[in-house]
This record gives sequence, C-alpha cells and structure tokens, in this order.
Amino acid sequence: MTNLKGASKIMYWADKLATYSSMQGGLTRAYLTSEHKQAHQQLADWMQQAGLQSWQDSVGNQWGRKVSTNPTQPTLIIGSHSDTVANAGQYDGNLGILLAIEALQQLQGTELPFHVDVVAFADEEGTRFNTTLIGSSAVAGCFQEDWLAVTDVQGTSMAEAMLDFGLDPNLNSAAKRKSEETLAYLEVHIEQGPVLESHDLAVGVVTGIAGAKRYQFKLSGMAGHAGTVPLALRRDAMCGAAQMICAIESFAFEKQIVATVGKCDLFPDAVNVIPGEVHFTLDIRSQDQSTLDNCCTALLAELSIIAEQRKLQLQSEIIYQAEAVLCSDRLQQQWAEVVESQTALPACFLSSGAGHDAMVMTNITDIGMLFVRCEKGISHNPRESVLEGDVAVALNCLVGMIKKLALESPMLK
Amino acid sequence: MTNLKGASKIMYWADKLATYSSMQGGLTRAYLTSEHKQAHQQLADWMQQAGLQSWQDSVGNQWGRKVSTNPTQPTLIIGSHSDTVANAGQYDGNLGILLAIEALQQLQGTELPFHVDVVAFADEEGTRFNTTLIGSSAVAGCFQEDWLAVTDVQGTSMAEAMLDFGLDPNLNSAAKRKSEETLAYLEVHIEQGPVLESHDLAVGVVTGIAGAKRYQFKLSGMAGHAGTVPLALRRDAMCGAAQMICAIESFAFEKQIVATVGKCDLFPDAVNVIPGEVHFTLDIRSQDQSTLDNCCTALLAELSIIAEQRKLQLQSEIIYQAEAVLCSDRLQQQWAEVVESQTALPACFLSSGAGHDAMVMTNITDIGMLFVRCEKGISHNPRESVLEGDVAVALNCLVGMIKKLALESPMLK
Repeated sequence: MTNLKGASKIMYWADKLATYSSMQGGLTRAYLTSEHKQAHQQLADWMQQAGLQSWQDSVGNQWGRKVSTNPTQPTLIIGSHSDTVANAGQYDGNLGILLAIEALQQLQGTELPFHVDVVAFADEEGTRFNTTLIGSSAVAGCFQEDWLAVTDVQGTSMAEAMLDFGLDPNLNSAAKRKSEETLAYLEVHIEQGPVLESHDLAVGVVTGIAGAKRYQFKLSGMAGHAGTVPLALRRDAMCGAAQMICAIESFAFEKQIVATVGKCDLFPDAVNVIPGEVHFTLDIRSQDQSTLDNCCTALLAELSIIAEQRKLQLQSEIIYQAEAVLCSDRLQQQWAEVVESQTALPACFLSSGAGHDAMVMTNITDIGMLFVRCEKGISHNPRESVLEGDVAVALNCLVGMIKKLALESPMLK
Repeated sequence: MTNLKGASKIMYWADKLATYSSMQGGLTRAYLTSEHKQAHQQLADWMQQAGLQSWQDSVGNQWGRKVSTNPTQPTLIIGSHSDTVANAGQYDGNLGILLAIEALQQLQGTELPFHVDVVAFADEEGTRFNTTLIGSSAVAGCFQEDWLAVTDVQGTSMAEAMLDFGLDPNLNSAAKRKSEETLAYLEVHIEQGPVLESHDLAVGVVTGIAGAKRYQFKLSGMAGHAGTVPLALRRDAMCGAAQMICAIESFAFEKQIVATVGKCDLFPDAVNVIPGEVHFTLDIRSQDQSTLDNCCTALLAELSIIAEQRKLQLQSEIIYQAEAVLCSDRLQQQWAEVVESQTALPACFLSSGAGHDAMVMTNITDIGMLFVRCEKGISHNPRESVLEGDVAVALNCLVGMIKKLALESPMLK
C-alpha cells in the first residue's frame, strides 16, 4: 500500500515550514526567535487540522495530542525538533514532526488504547545558545538551571530570551513529563549519513545513538625557517600532526569506529615557516560506550608515542562528551517487523552517529527510532534532500508502528 | 688574534640600529618608511666615522666607499640588507652591514688595490610591497618596472612611496652597477639555521643559495557529518592531506632536500564535520636546480597517486620559484683559508636554504658568503641572537678576506 498523498502533503509542509527563517534564500531557525514562534503557530494549525489538541509548554516546545478514550492510559510521545543549524536543510528534525502529524491525521478515526502526543522540540541544535537539546532536556527533566544564564552572540541570556518570547524561565521544570505516564518515545529522522543509500533502502531501524568524545589537541614543536633547518634538526608540529591524523584514521578503521579531525590550525601559518605549533580536534564515536572509552585510552597512548618520538609536546583536553544510548530491543524489533511488512525486504539495522532528542528522552522512557534515507547522506546543508517515495514508506511504517503498539501495548511495559 | 673591541662596537650598533622601528618594543623596518630614512642616516654617520664617503642611490640603498689610490681599479662590494620582517630580530641583514663598516674602519690605514663599497640594501624582505630583493635588484639591473605599480596594504604604490621618500621612481635604473667595474660581492649573514650551532662553529662558508619552489594545493573530497558517515564511505580531504604531508616528509628525507608544509586550511573547519576541502602549501628547496626540478616532478606524481587512491581531487599551482645560485669556487676557497687561519679548525661548508641579496648580485659579479652562527637557528623572530665572540671571529674573517683579495686580486677576475 503506497501513501503518496500523505507523503506529498508532508513534502509541501516541509517546503512551507522552511519559509520561517531568519535568512534570505536559506533556512536558519533558532530557539526563541520570531521564526520559532511562527513555525510553531503553523505546526499548531496543522496539528489542529489533524484533530489534535495543541499547546505550547513552558520552554517553548509545541505539542499536539490525540486523546485516548481511556484517560488512565500512558502517553506515546512521537516527535523531533523544529529548530535548525545555520543555513540548514529542511528535513533534519522537521520531517519527523510532520510525519507524526500526518500519521495521526490518518489515524483520526482509529481508537487507540493510549494517548499519543506529537512534539516539536524547540531546540536540539543549540544554534543560538550553544547548549544543545534544550527542548527535550526540559521534557526529560534534564534541563539545567544554569543554562538560563548562558548568552547568545548578542549577549542576551536564555532567561531574557524566554521572557521576550512570552515564557517564564522560572517555570522551565513544568515541561517535565513523568516516566510512569509515558509509554515510549518514537522519532523518525533523516539518516544524515550514506548507509541506507549505499544499501538502496528507504528506511532503517536505529539500534542506538553513538557515544561521542571530542578532544582539543595542542602539539608543540619548534618553528623555524623553511629553507635553513635540515630535516633531521626539525621539530615540525605539522608533520607530527599529519602522522597522528594518519594514525587516527588507521585506528578507526581497525576498531570499526568513526573518528574525525575537523579542525587544524597551524602557527605561525606561513608558507616559508616550519609550523611550531598545531592545534587540532578529534571527534570520536562508538555505539558501545566501553568500546569508546577503551579506544580513546588506546588512541591517546598511540598519539603520545608519536609525540615523544618526534620530540613534540602533546597536550589534550576533552571538550565534549556524550554517553552512548541504546534503543529499546523490543521497539527495534517492532520497527523491524513493520519495515519488513511495508517494504518486503529484511530490515536494515544501523546505529546513529549523530545525536538526537531520543538520546535525552531515554531518561524517562524507552526510545525507538527510524531513519529515512537522505541523498548522499548530506545534512546540515541546503542540499539536504529526501525522496517523496521514501517519505511515503516512512509514513506507512509510522502508522503501522502506532497500530502495532496499540495491539501489543500490554507487553510493552 | 681576537677582535673583541670591534665586536663589542658592532653589538652596540646593532642595538642602536634596532631602535629605528615602526613598532613599540620590537623591530619592524620596511622599505621607504621614516624608519628606513633614520636608520640609513645613522648608517651614513657610522660610515663617515669609518672614513668612508657615503651616499644614497636612486632606489634608497645607502653606500659607503673606501676609495683606492688607483682609480682605474674595480670595486669590491660588501653588504647586506637593512630592512626587516615584521617583529624581527636585529641581526638578520643588519649584522652584515655593520661588520663591513667596522672591517673598513679597521682597514682605514691600509692601502687596497681596489675600491671597496659597503652597501645597505633598503629592501630584501619585501615586508611592505611583497616584492623581495628590491634594493639589490636595482643594483644588479634586475629591477622590474612593473614593481613601481605594486601597492602596500594602505594602497600606496611603490612609485608614490619613492616620491614621498624623496626619490624619483623614473631614475631607478641609475642604481645599476656595471659588471666590468665590480670585483666581487661579499656578504656576511647570520645562518638563520641550526647547522653551525650543531657543529659548534662560529662561522661557515656558504656554497650556494638553494633554489626554491612554492606550491599551493587544493585537495577536494566530500564534507559530511562526523558521526554518520562510515570511514569506508568517506572522502576526507584532511586524511588525504595528512597522508600527503607524511609522504612529503619521507620524500625529503630520502632525497636530502628540505620541504615544508607551512599553511593548511580546512573547510568547513568544524569539530564535527568531515573536511571536504583542504588547502595547503609546500615550500621545497635544493641547492642543485636539477635535483629540485626532478624532485618536484616526482613528488607531485606521488601526491597525485594518493589523491587518486582516495578519490580526492588535487589541484596544484606554483606560486613562487627562485633558481639555485652557486657561490664562486675561488671565493669559497678564499673564505675557507681565512676561516681556517682565524679559527684553527677546518672550515665548514654549508648551503643557504634562505634567499639573500647575493642571489641577485650573482647577475653582475661573483659572490662569496660567510655565515655566522645564531642561537638555535632562530631568525625572523625577536629572539634572534648571536654571540659577541662569533661576531669577533666573523669580523676577523672579513678583514682577512679583504686583505687576501688585495693580495690575490690579479687572479680573481
């Protein structure tokens, strides 16, 4: 059964939603801005048209509820984020919200044994305040009070921005949902990677969200004249960094993890001067937290040996870390059954290297995620693109998953 | 015989000369500035005190002449440059001028069978106009008329700057010296490298000035999310660049040349994004021009193979090149004899990886250079430092060399 009408509507909605942007000719939508307000008003309209009750919570997330006739039942939460990075694509986050609204539209006449809440989280990317996952953190009870003092580039604090937006920052904890009243959290998201495309599949079942660590390295040698210092007398920080980057890549291949050196700054940074200092970053991720921890220990030891052999000083600092999170085995299995029945193909299981709201929602409930293929894996980029046919498959899967949970919900908790 | 009094005077002069600077607490002296004027007035005073006739030529070089009683004889030119890089050391260039003045002071009573001209070249570094070796190029007849239109960061052209300085840009060719009237060009310069220090020697005889080529590379792959793209599907431009930098280093070791990657810029340059593009430079030098040419061909082929294996695109552009220049065999031999008689040690022969005014002067005459040890090879840096004892040795060598040329001059040409 295809669902091309629903998918077509979602594609139209995604185009329309992308017009609520702070930039001309592109999409940028940050937390607590007028674009945030306009986009959420639009989402509220669509939610109401789908028969949902809509409201904004105390940190600015937008909700839409399909009420069960049995008011004592827990709530299935389905959602994703509506904010974007700067000069973003229009499907990252937003697609998951629109799929949920349309799925509930299609289930409007169907009685379910639990409430269903669609949520548009107002901040996942951290574009404005550099603190990511604000919306889902409030819902999962992990909102940190000290975030209220964090300022944007204009010097406006989050608390001030909330007041300007019409929210009371003192009420942020009111957004928290209770674990015992929550059935599960489902999220459909574009893959943001090339795995599904490389397997020619529309959707895939997410096994978990990788843990990540980020390091800032400072490698110090000795600057010198590019013409006058013989190689044997050099302590070239860039040659050392290059050897380390090659070692990082080989190590990641061997251990089947991902590791990325995304920034590398040379000092003094002149064509005819031997680099005396190089600052570079490492982003390293694994779905298994102990693998990640062990890999970091082993890799840092390997880099230290390279530094020592080259008479360079290596300083390292962890600048970010997030624990690995697993999707519920039962929800993975249910997604897989739905995917197989919709596509007549074995379900593809894959882990998420990127962070998602589901990562935080795991604090209060089981999480289950479905990935949708995106072209060439491109994301955080205006060229982000999905196929309407894949959106139809994802929509069918989401409708199917809600129905399956309705049938199997007694076993779920 | 030590020459500590002369060396002490030179050290004092160098301190004094370093005060003619455009920056507070450091030394920056560029072509055609008020600091240039003040420094050359000071040099003219010291030249006159040493019994020399002093004048400024048509491009702003400062000269001092010890006239021979035989006016038909050619002229021995001894000099170096008085301009500096930004935030420079005080010996690069300047030491060679001060040594020449003091050497002629010490030879004031000695009759020589040729004229001797001390020259302070007004621009070697190219700090203001990015065109290097302006002063010596004018003297050697290689001044390019189109340089007059080159502008500094303020937008002032070299021609305008000459007028402001009191020079007529149309008269630049008047600075040219005739080959047939020139006996040789001698230059004493700090090594700007660590070779003499590593051999524990005060001075060394320069065999030639390395040829150099500089390349700008652009390596293109595919940017992507650091968490979501498996290693096997990546086209990481930084991993490619790192492998190339390692290959460049190994190649240079094997071929016994010097090669340096001094700049490396990543795009998009974010901790969590796979670099899609890397721009990096290569500075490669050899004293033998054909070695340099062959190495460049071989190395570029090696880099192309790496790019191909990694499905990256490599574009390269030559942004600078200078031919290798040899010092006169006879002058090398004469310097060596003088060094051995002054130090009672075998002379050390070494090539210059850095460019010098001598490189240009080779167009009109034989060149002979002597290097003076500098601490840790540090140059183009306020920490540039020389030992007073080494300056005494260099001064004795220069005085000895002038006397030797006087004795052996009929054989010189």
